[in-house]
Amino acid sequence: MFLKADILGIESGGKPIVFLNKSDADEIGIRASGRITITFKKKPVTSIVNTTTSVKRGIIGVNEEVRQTLGIKQNSLVDVDIAPFPKSLQYIHNKLTGRRLGFDEISEIVRDVVQGNLNENEISAFVTALSMQGLDLDEATGLALSMVDTGKQLNLRKKMIVDKHSIGGVPGDKTTLLVVPIIASLGLTIPKVSSRAITSAGGTADRAEALMPVDLKISEMERVVRRSNGCIIWGGSLELAPADDIFVRSEYSLYIDPLLLPSIMSKKKAVNTKHLVIDIPTGRGAKMQTVGESDFLAKELIEVGRRLGIHTQCVLTNGDKPIGYAIGPSLEAREALSVLMNRAVVPDLTDKVCHIAGSILEMAGRRNGYQLAREALRSGRAEAKMREIIGLQGGNTKIRIDDFAIGQEREKIMAGKTGHVLWMDNVALIELARAAGAPKDKGAGIFFNKKVGDKVRSGDVIYTVFSEKARKLSRALEIVKDSAPIGIGEYHEMFIHKVKEPSPVKRSFVMER
Amino acid sequence: MFLKADILGIESGGKPIVFLNKSDADEIGIRASGRITITFKKKPVTSIVNTTTSVKRGIIGVNEEVRQTLGIKQNSLVDVDIAPFPKSLQYIHNKLTGRRLGFDEISEIVRDVVQGNLNENEISAFVTALSMQGLDLDEATGLALSMVDTGKQLNLRKKMIVDKHSIGGVPGDKTTLLVVPIIASLGLTIPKVSSRAITSAGGTADRAEALMPVDLKISEMERVVRRSNGCIIWGGSLELAPADDIFVRSEYSLYIDPLLLPSIMSKKKAVNTKHLVIDIPTGRGAKMQTVGESDFLAKELIEVGRRLGIHTQCVLTNGDKPIGYAIGPSLEAREALSVLMNRAVVPDLTDKVCHIAGSILEMAGRRNGYQLAREALRSGRAEAKMREIIGLQGGNTKIRIDDFAIGQEREKIMAGKTGHVLWMDNVALIELARAAGAPKDKGAGIFFNKKVGDKVRSGDVIYTVFSEKARKLSRALEIVKDSAPIGIGEYHEMFIHKVKEPSPVKRSFVMER
Repeated sequence: MFLKADILGIESGGKPIVFLNKSDADEIGIRASGRITITFKKKPVTSIVNTTTSVKRGIIGVNEEVRQTLGIKQNSLVDVDIAPFPKSLQYIHNKLTGRRLGFDEISEIVRDVVQGNLNENEISAFVTALSMQGLDLDEATGLALSMVDTGKQLNLRKKMIVDKHSIGGVPGDKTTLLVVPIIASLGLTIPKVSSRAITSAGGTADRAEALMPVDLKISEMERVVRRSNGCIIWGGSLELAPADDIFVRSEYSLYIDPLLLPSIMSKKKAVNTKHLVIDIPTGRGAKMQTVGESDFLAKELIEVGRRLGIHTQCVLTNGDKPIGYAIGPSLEAREALSVLMNRAVVPDLTDKVCHIAGSILEMAGRRNGYQLAREALRSGRAEAKMREIIGLQGGNTKIRIDDFAIGQEREKIMAGKTGHVLWMDNVALIELARAAGAPKDKGAGIFFNKKVGDKVRSGDVIYTVFSEKARKLSRALEIVKDSAPIGIGEYHEMFIHKVKEPSPVKRSFVMER
Repeated sequence: MFLKADILGIESGGKPIVFLNKSDADEIGIRASGRITITFKKKPVTSIVNTTTSVKRGIIGVNEEVRQTLGIKQNSLVDVDIAPFPKSLQYIHNKLTGRRLGFDEISEIVRDVVQGNLNENEISAFVTALSMQGLDLDEATGLALSMVDTGKQLNLRKKMIVDKHSIGGVPGDKTTLLVVPIIASLGLTIPKVSSRAITSAGGTADRAEALMPVDLKISEMERVVRRSNGCIIWGGSLELAPADDIFVRSEYSLYIDPLLLPSIMSKKKAVNTKHLVIDIPTGRGAKMQTVGESDFLAKELIEVGRRLGIHTQCVLTNGDKPIGYAIGPSLEAREALSVLMNRAVVPDLTDKVCHIAGSILEMAGRRNGYQLAREALRSGRAEAKMREIIGLQGGNTKIRIDDFAIGQEREKIMAGKTGHVLWMDNVALIELARAAGAPKDKGAGIFFNKKVGDKVRSGDVIYTVFSEKARKLSRALEIVKDSAPIGIGEYHEMFIHKVKEPSPVKRSFVMER
């Protein structure tokens, strides 16, 4: 039927959206969340339908995405009909009943996701089905390839592109800020694409942004990498795997992560990585709790890598406590710069960095990788490379340790008793840093004076909470009061807790992409 | 943070919806599809967030639902914060990982669904998880009870309320239009709540609407039933189980139906049914394909009924072909009235009606139920009762067979060869009737001259397609050309079809609620 377009002036992040009067929708034979095809001058677009009583009969309210795609104006007459039933929905349904998906079926699903032909219910069902049924290696590979095919790719025409990735989950993990300049300073090419926090206190892109701009176009990224061999760029606007950005919305909402494997590997494929090291933090409070689990994930990552032509190794690292002394974008960037400048000694961070950088170097044929990485740090070559990258990305090459704006609202947290730091609770510490304002407020976060194993006397400062706003600091301090983010005691203490009734609900799910 | 309200004037079917600028959402610490609490004069409301660039910073766009709940005006200053994480989401997550849900957990989920605290992704994941994991009888009972608790109830203070239900799926099934007046004419109380078509060519409410108004309030329904012992009302605006109306949106979109059992039983409990007969059409092209499957479903329905205090029996009926000669609201209503008036002989319809009505009568203590029902039809008592109900619901008590407006756009379909009608394809016939305009266009549909088993000569009219609009008739005729809704041949013909490559996608899912 023909309807008059009403331009609503709403943008919806790339997705076509329309509003129809309920009667018109009935007449077309469609319900809310159904699909229609809107045609104007022989150009069609498929859109998900919303029904409402506030749009008059004979009118179709359209968002900016529909207006632009069709090139219509206020009151343009468009032809509206039921869209053909998408095959991809049949495939999703099949997965939901336990069938495995073939490569063509996966391609079709991913294409329809990117083109907006599937509604949120349908995408959410697909993600749920993947989470419940699991995906085999063929499916994971197919998803990774389809995500690459529907996105942009980086083409540097360099032979030896290397990369690192962490499956994340551990607060304070600024490893990438050191690995990239080390590797680039040693002549390998590492075009690092990073993520922002979704549920964490900071992703690598959030940390790097305290040092330099990270929101670059793909052409600018190419320029930086051609000149310096490295970069640290936020992946969000590069569109390397736009399907993943859509899937992640459902995953986040449901705190499930079935697409972890294709999500990682698609983005590495899209930048043409040849050698890849993946960090799998393992331990209580990390995404992977046991070595067995992590080894199994590693095996799958390596196998999918093989199928995609990416030489992959995994490094299991200790994930049961934060890395270094700082959590929060600016505090972490400051700590990373201090280590690059040899102005601070952060043994756990340096050890992790050198293991990962060393593994990359050895995959690329160098010997004694750990020592090479350590020497690049000690000699200042890594620092010089980092300042070069900062400059090319548009930051201040002369940035000093005192230049970071750290939140002025501060509270020191003292030990209530004497003993040792026995444990640090990653999840509670992330919650605390987020309440203080991280990662949105770059200067918010936590700085530790003591870490696991350190001797503590009652009254000693264990850590300081930083915030940019008084309101957020007091919200954070309530969390300190309600939970115990850090445990102090003696090593002979055995009691964990007693269960008298079902435990209260506790969401713990860390996500960055 | 405090934001200024912008009243958008959009209604969204009861669900609170707000739009925030991306930066404000980041500041609050929330992503699209997250939950916020909006407070005005100490009154809070929880809403799902949409982020957009077209709402300015400092502004919150609100729909009518939010405006009314909070009692705010344009530019009212509201306090916006992250909503507490809903426990129900943890329970959904648990179900998704294979755990069974307890009664309190189910209640919490259903309450949050009804109050709009869960977003579409989350509801869709719950429905998907139920479909994949299945629900045990405790969960089904818990869902049914929670759905009743969150809805309205009918209280007639009569001792003996009986009811019937069909799980549906068979086109042309106007059984209810005859069972209700038969039962009511024999002194039992049958407050029938019916559904409209979702993916079928007509639900009972659509058929009944060709005879009388069906969109009554619960108080009006009570009045009709008190006077006449029966009614046929559309359940959509009665709010007997509002949760089900929300779940069904996800089910429809994904064409899965895991809530069938609690959906049926909650609505029967809400009208205080004591004796219930459920029709399970069984056969090729029906929802249930085999007698074994149907018997298993029957067992579950009976057991859940027992737990809810509803005495339940199931009747398996032949579901592999349409009931009677007519498909489409007005054609079916006309056929039902013709049988009530003893002006037409429709043996399969009459047999089905008398079995179901007979079963109800025998559950309520009468003897020879089938014969009693048959006699109520023959004597005209059922017709008189139907006219009484029509009058009480606001229709024309004197309605004649010629009064139905049948579509003027018609096409007779002839047999291409001589033989017998071997089969009728329910799914193709529903698709055909829908293309012709049913159920939205009441006069659209199909009338059969021949049914399964009838002898046919080449050139005989097998059926006529009716439509109200030429455009829809030609759309319907394309389906006739592309598919074979009715098979004619000889009984010795054995060939079904050959598979040379994967079959094309075919959605077949019939839903009414």
